[in-house]
Amino acid sequence: MLKSSLLLVLLTAVQAFQPMRTASSSTTLFMTTKENDTKQDIRVGVIGMGRIGLVHLEAITKAPGVRPVIVSNPTVSKAEAAAKQYNVPRFTDNAMDVITDPQVDAVWICSPSQYHAEQIKACAANKKHVFCEKPIATELDETVEAINACNEAGVKLMIGLQRRFDQNFRRVEQAIRKSEVGEPIMIKLCSRDPSPPPYSYVKGGGGIFADMAVHDLDMSRFLAGSDPIDILAIGSCHIDKSINDLPGSEKYDTASCLVRYPNGVQAMIDVCRQSSFGYDQRAEVLGTKGMIQTDNVYPNTAKIFKPDFTGNADMPFDFFLSRYNEAYVTETIAFCESLVNDTPVPCTGEDGLVALIMAIAADKSAAENRWVSFREIVEQVYCSSPTQCELLSQSELFPAGFRPSGDAKSLLLPNVDEQKKAQANGFRAALSKIFG
Amino acid sequence: MLKSSLLLVLLTAVQAFQPMRTASSSTTLFMTTKENDTKQDIRVGVIGMGRIGLVHLEAITKAPGVRPVIVSNPTVSKAEAAAKQYNVPRFTDNAMDVITDPQVDAVWICSPSQYHAEQIKACAANKKHVFCEKPIATELDETVEAINACNEAGVKLMIGLQRRFDQNFRRVEQAIRKSEVGEPIMIKLCSRDPSPPPYSYVKGGGGIFADMAVHDLDMSRFLAGSDPIDILAIGSCHIDKSINDLPGSEKYDTASCLVRYPNGVQAMIDVCRQSSFGYDQRAEVLGTKGMIQTDNVYPNTAKIFKPDFTGNADMPFDFFLSRYNEAYVTETIAFCESLVNDTPVPCTGEDGLVALIMAIAADKSAAENRWVSFREIVEQVYCSSPTQCELLSQSELFPAGFRPSGDAKSLLLPNVDEQKKAQANGFRAALSKIFG
Amino acid sequence: MLKSSLLLVLLTAVQAFQPMRTASSSTTLFMTTKENDTKQDIRVGVIGMGRIGLVHLEAITKAPGVRPVIVSNPTVSKAEAAAKQYNVPRFTDNAMDVITDPQVDAVWICSPSQYHAEQIKACAANKKHVFCEKPIATELDETVEAINACNEAGVKLMIGLQRRFDQNFRRVEQAIRKSEVGEPIMIKLCSRDPSPPPYSYVKGGGGIFADMAVHDLDMSRFLAGSDPIDILAIGSCHIDKSINDLPGSEKYDTASCLVRYPNGVQAMIDVCRQSSFGYDQRAEVLGTKGMIQTDNVYPNTAKIFKPDFTGNADMPFDFFLSRYNEAYVTETIAFCESLVNDTPVPCTGEDGLVALIMAIAADKSAAENRWVSFREIVEQVYCSSPTQCELLSQSELFPAGFRPSGDAKSLLLPNVDEQKKAQANGFRAALSKIFG
Amino acid sequence: MLKSSLLLVLLTAVQAFQPMRTASSSTTLFMTTKENDTKQDIRVGVIGMGRIGLVHLEAITKAPGVRPVIVSNPTVSKAEAAAKQYNVPRFTDNAMDVITDPQVDAVWICSPSQYHAEQIKACAANKKHVFCEKPIATELDETVEAINACNEAGVKLMIGLQRRFDQNFRRVEQAIRKSEVGEPIMIKLCSRDPSPPPYSYVKGGGGIFADMAVHDLDMSRFLAGSDPIDILAIGSCHIDKSINDLPGSEKYDTASCLVRYPNGVQAMIDVCRQSSFGYDQRAEVLGTKGMIQTDNVYPNTAKIFKPDFTGNADMPFDFFLSRYNEAYVTETIAFCESLVNDTPVPCTGEDGLVALIMAIAADKSAAENRWVSFREIVEQVYCSSPTQCELLSQSELFPAGFRPSGDAKSLLLPNVDEQKKAQANGFRAALSKIFG
Repeated sequence: MLKSSLLLVLLTAVQAFQPMRTASSSTTLFMTTKENDTKQDIRVGVIGMGRIGLVHLEAITKAPGVRPVIVSNPTVSKAEAAAKQYNVPRFTDNAMDVITDPQVDAVWICSPSQYHAEQIKACAANKKHVFCEKPIATELDETVEAINACNEAGVKLMIGLQRRFDQNFRRVEQAIRKSEVGEPIMIKLCSRDPSPPPYSYVKGGGGIFADMAVHDLDMSRFLAGSDPIDILAIGSCHIDKSINDLPGSEKYDTASCLVRYPNGVQAMIDVCRQSSFGYDQRAEVLGTKGMIQTDNVYPNTAKIFKPDFTGNADMPFDFFLSRYNEAYVTETIAFCESLVNDTPVPCTGEDGLVALIMAIAADKSAAENRWVSFREIVEQVYCSSPTQCELLSQSELFPAGFRPSGDAKSLLLPNVDEQKKAQANGFRAALSKIFG
Repeated sequence: MLKSSLLLVLLTAVQAFQPMRTASSSTTLFMTTKENDTKQDIRVGVIGMGRIGLVHLEAITKAPGVRPVIVSNPTVSKAEAAAKQYNVPRFTDNAMDVITDPQVDAVWICSPSQYHAEQIKACAANKKHVFCEKPIATELDETVEAINACNEAGVKLMIGLQRRFDQNFRRVEQAIRKSEVGEPIMIKLCSRDPSPPPYSYVKGGGGIFADMAVHDLDMSRFLAGSDPIDILAIGSCHIDKSINDLPGSEKYDTASCLVRYPNGVQAMIDVCRQSSFGYDQRAEVLGTKGMIQTDNVYPNTAKIFKPDFTGNADMPFDFFLSRYNEAYVTETIAFCESLVNDTPVPCTGEDGLVALIMAIAADKSAAENRWVSFREIVEQVYCSSPTQCELLSQSELFPAGFRPSGDAKSLLLPNVDEQKKAQANGFRAALSKIFG
Repeated sequence: MLKSSLLLVLLTAVQAFQPMRTASSSTTLFMTTKENDTKQDIRVGVIGMGRIGLVHLEAITKAPGVRPVIVSNPTVSKAEAAAKQYNVPRFTDNAMDVITDPQVDAVWICSPSQYHAEQIKACAANKKHVFCEKPIATELDETVEAINACNEAGVKLMIGLQRRFDQNFRRVEQAIRKSEVGEPIMIKLCSRDPSPPPYSYVKGGGGIFADMAVHDLDMSRFLAGSDPIDILAIGSCHIDKSINDLPGSEKYDTASCLVRYPNGVQAMIDVCRQSSFGYDQRAEVLGTKGMIQTDNVYPNTAKIFKPDFTGNADMPFDFFLSRYNEAYVTETIAFCESLVNDTPVPCTGEDGLVALIMAIAADKSAAENRWVSFREIVEQVYCSSPTQCELLSQSELFPAGFRPSGDAKSLLLPNVDEQKKAQANGFRAALSKIFG
Repeated sequence: MLKSSLLLVLLTAVQAFQPMRTASSSTTLFMTTKENDTKQDIRVGVIGMGRIGLVHLEAITKAPGVRPVIVSNPTVSKAEAAAKQYNVPRFTDNAMDVITDPQVDAVWICSPSQYHAEQIKACAANKKHVFCEKPIATELDETVEAINACNEAGVKLMIGLQRRFDQNFRRVEQAIRKSEVGEPIMIKLCSRDPSPPPYSYVKGGGGIFADMAVHDLDMSRFLAGSDPIDILAIGSCHIDKSINDLPGSEKYDTASCLVRYPNGVQAMIDVCRQSSFGYDQRAEVLGTKGMIQTDNVYPNTAKIFKPDFTGNADMPFDFFLSRYNEAYVTETIAFCESLVNDTPVPCTGEDGLVALIMAIAADKSAAENRWVSFREIVEQVYCSSPTQCELLSQSELFPAGFRPSGDAKSLLLPNVDEQKKAQANGFRAALSKIFG
């Protein structure tokens, strides 16, 4: 049954990727001027008109070949205001209106995290491509399900790990990829929020590794260009001592991680929930031929010199929305390009999955004061059932080092971009790869 | 006759500033979703689809309440491509199609400089508001005529002195305005192009003060917050010695200016046509309580450390289009706001006029090796005719210090925003102000 | 017997600290000019006229109240040249000539590391105060013996942990001490040598933690202002793969450490034997109220801007002798002041001892992939003998957290400065403190 | 008569430059240690034990081959204290004791400026080499006399233009000399004192060009590597308005200069008596291949990040004694080397003379609002007497462009280093050069 559903997926995928454009018609010809052929745009819906949803919506309006057609927000007045501001024809208070809208080709999920997995699956069921803000979910199996739903439906899934699109981190990645600094030896990442969130946010939030360090864990992997092996983490509490009674890593406001990558590459990560001068986000990579490092971003280059200090005229950007504003735009435009040109998404569901596993492992390491391998986390969830464990051992969902040992076929589907690549490599070959 | 034409202007202006919006209707209502009330936008035409025209066009698409409806370019394929990219309904090869288009409320003039004055006057004749890239013209009287045409027609005229909208220069201006560095003492500006233009560009280009230092001359006035008194300039040739046979300041690739402002404020400006590391644009202001300075802008914060150097991972933005990209957007959005809210434009024709006079005076100073007052330039052009000279002596077109002595009424009209302010202050009072 | 030797030490110490100055007489009176009273200086000998010995010798010539009287070096021509350059009256090829010289009050030991412990003990036996370049020894018990020899002899012992005297690291320490950045949360230290030492140096050198990271381990303790609890370390090899066959941490050219201090303070340290742009030595401390960080040191402030890069005109100081030149001078002058004014030394034998224990623990942690407490290292060496272990449990030689549990009197002596402090607090009280 | 005195000078010079060292003998041989041959040092006297005198005295103690033997100060207790601190055998309250001391080979003049010229001439009369803090004198003819006195006596004269020895300015000079930035186009210098001197200092001080900008005028010439042509200067008053009633440039606290050098090289200089953040001393040179610039100097590299600012942890060095401390040491050591090795001094009396002429010309330019050539200043002083004017026209004392036109032999003597060079080139040739 598994096999036949896969076959169906592959056939569906072939059909699905016919052009997704719809026709529209145009206006009055005027004197000597000429009429502009209107484009057949990819039509987009956006769920969630909070601050981050608005950033994505504005980015969508800038991306060529893509057009927002509907937005939703539970407080509908926000959806209405956004629709007015960005000339979106329709708005609603119901996310399902967006997901089921037959005119919609792709959905941006910018709702609160707890709805992500469910909405991703609904999108898959309605054959909509999905952009989802991180995280997919806070549990491993829920994350896997959501990813698989997209893979089975043959729709694209992109996860918004926005730092990968920041020009500063990208420059570091480029330096490694182009060997400007030689082979990487040591990757150092520092991430500090301007001020700690309230107790209510921290409680039940999954802890400092899942809700904060996860970005840096992902970034270390993005920069290393390979999958990590194991992690050592510690945490402590310095700012708001009231959180000290919370369980696990929710009690920490400060944490450090060491992550080991193949070939001895080491990553050092430190995070803190308070940086009194504002959002602090820096990277440094030592390679065999040099070093590259990034600094925080300031709104201008002005320096001021006064009797009691000399330094930057203004404070650096104070939090993620200002600091990563361009990165959010860039990632949305990147997904738009991926939709318009039908190319692979630059940040996959699997990337989100691995980041989650890293955060879970960090949590365990800090709790148990020892090195934890990522495979251990996967085994912990899946190897209570021997079959599932065996199946996973060769699944491509998890990076090689993350999989339990075993000798089974995969229970996991290639994502839509892999399916197409396989297709391009010859349909028969693709089938034989999957069905043996 | 003069008086009655002025009266006409004022009356016209009152009528002209009825809302300029047109209605449009909208699409299908869909299930539970709601329809978005479409806006009545200010409709805009853009002349010139070169690089700078495209930057302005993109900015217009981002500005709320404004909508591009037609673009023109002599090579029509460029206009067509731009129309496609930015969803502009119509395009043409003829600038006059834009200017005379009854659906157009405002025109962006991004054509080559030699067409500016003529196109401004055509816009005024067609009651279109005008945004014009600097310069208005290279001659003083032509510049005055174009400005007066707009003032007479009661249309807004904004000049694109884009550095005034750059976040770095603005930060310096803010430091002065808010007295962060106390009263200004010394203003230093440095402007260097990445590499010299070809001989053919320099020849007949008006010389280094008019085609290059004019931005810095204007910036010194913007920062000083007052009108300058006189100037001392010198020039020399270092890079391409072939230009040494050109007349006047066309033979210089390097120049320095000292400008004196009221209260002893000094401005030092140096420009050069070649800066081997790229576009170099910096400001520094010493005040009685501190100093502020800006640096060049880099595409990211990355620094790289290699065996033979340690420094910025990338070169600074290489020329005005990349360096001032955001400034162009900001200035266009500022003009859009001025149109939508009917508020005064932030950079007037008069600002362009003064900058031109400063450049002409610099030229004369370098040629004659002496201090030249700005009044001298105005007198040189207008005081061959005693009447004109006398009229000018009380005109508000020129700053007080620029005017010849005399005792006549003004021959110059208030600009549209001044007219409205006057109107708001009581119509009778306005009339009495103008007609005595 | 132990007790009576201690009593002897204390009595000796009382006598020993009579003024150590000798008289000298002076020259011709001349006309109206007056004769300068010559000073009775502390007389100093320096062992080892390698590069570091010369730096200390020059510093000694600058320190008021101190005078070099003899220098030694096995290659005597080096001693001779140094004596000439710095006007030292005598030189020799035999370190023992320096140590036994009756005119010498204090000895600087700048010989190769393997002679340090033996020479310290010889100095103690000859009642000379000692400045010793780090390390005292590579073995724990040898280190303890050398320190105790000085304590027993009542002579001062200062260890040359020169980074504590660098103006940059001192500034960070000051920021913490004066609470400029609030309470410390996270201490980050980065230390990279310009290029890896030869295989022959690495082999038998004690490994990367003992011969390199030891400075950073000490610095983390200097900055934290308290004694650390435990350590987690890892190492890897990236540059010269030939060292991969060496034992323990000698096979690493790159290492990371996490050190836990009381109150949850975390220290992250990374070291590497190769930094292609030169010696890289930086510190960063995040506190509850701010952050402070230091950069590398450049020979001048010049920045250069060329077609292919913009950055520092010169490379940073390339290795410890240039980078820490001033720090070496400062530490020697600090010891001179301590001698002249008979005040406690600013960097004690105990500081050297703790740094060694930290390095040994890092080694063990990397080998065993786990957290190692510093107490564990002490117990490993001393608790094979229950008596010694019990004695150590209350010794003040080791920081509280480093001592084994137990209930014995101390077998360790207070150092000379503590003895004097005790003496100043009343002789009887001091005795009762030691003998119970 | 002129000719024969010159001959005498030359012959004297030949004899004078026999080794200037005196013998001394040495101490006890000790066991196996060896005795150090003591050196025959150049013996030095220092006049003036104010702050700058102490800096030079300390530098002299560090310089090899040179030994301070006497110091003077009117308040003799200061001389005594300095003698004690630096082990100088004798001290006095009378500068003439230093100048006439037969044991003294060279004198450092660190007395108040008004005594400089007189003391230089007294040194020359006593055949002592002279190091003199700038200025030689405030009048042109007095300056020429003092220089000529040294040249006639065949003694070295070095002027303390200390910025030429600052590592930052030297780095800029090196970049030009080694063509790192190509041919210089534009030299920019900025010099600002931390706070204005009292009215009493300004009154009669010679004005802002002579007492402040003179350093920058000299630096522009040092960097340009050639002699300047003419100058344009302006001044204004912003801080302490009470000085506004003073004559000439004494009423300015702010000034700007443009200086023209051969080949179109331009120098822009701005100075101000108040920089609220401390001493501000920066240079920038644009060349045909690049740019180099220096920044102020900070006591350490620490940067601090707090809620209200991010920038340097400490203020830059606050005034010339701290900022140029190393430069003073370097210049004194450079003169010591010049004495020990009998090589030309690196900063001559002529350099001091030219700097003074530049300052006088700046003064005149600001007063008369016009370009002033340096030749004009020389002519103004010397061309009231036609003979003197004619003689000067070929004198090598002044740079070529500074000399009046004429056709006479020189009335000025070569300085001692030129005399020796001439001598080395053949005695007869030297004579024929001078006497024609």
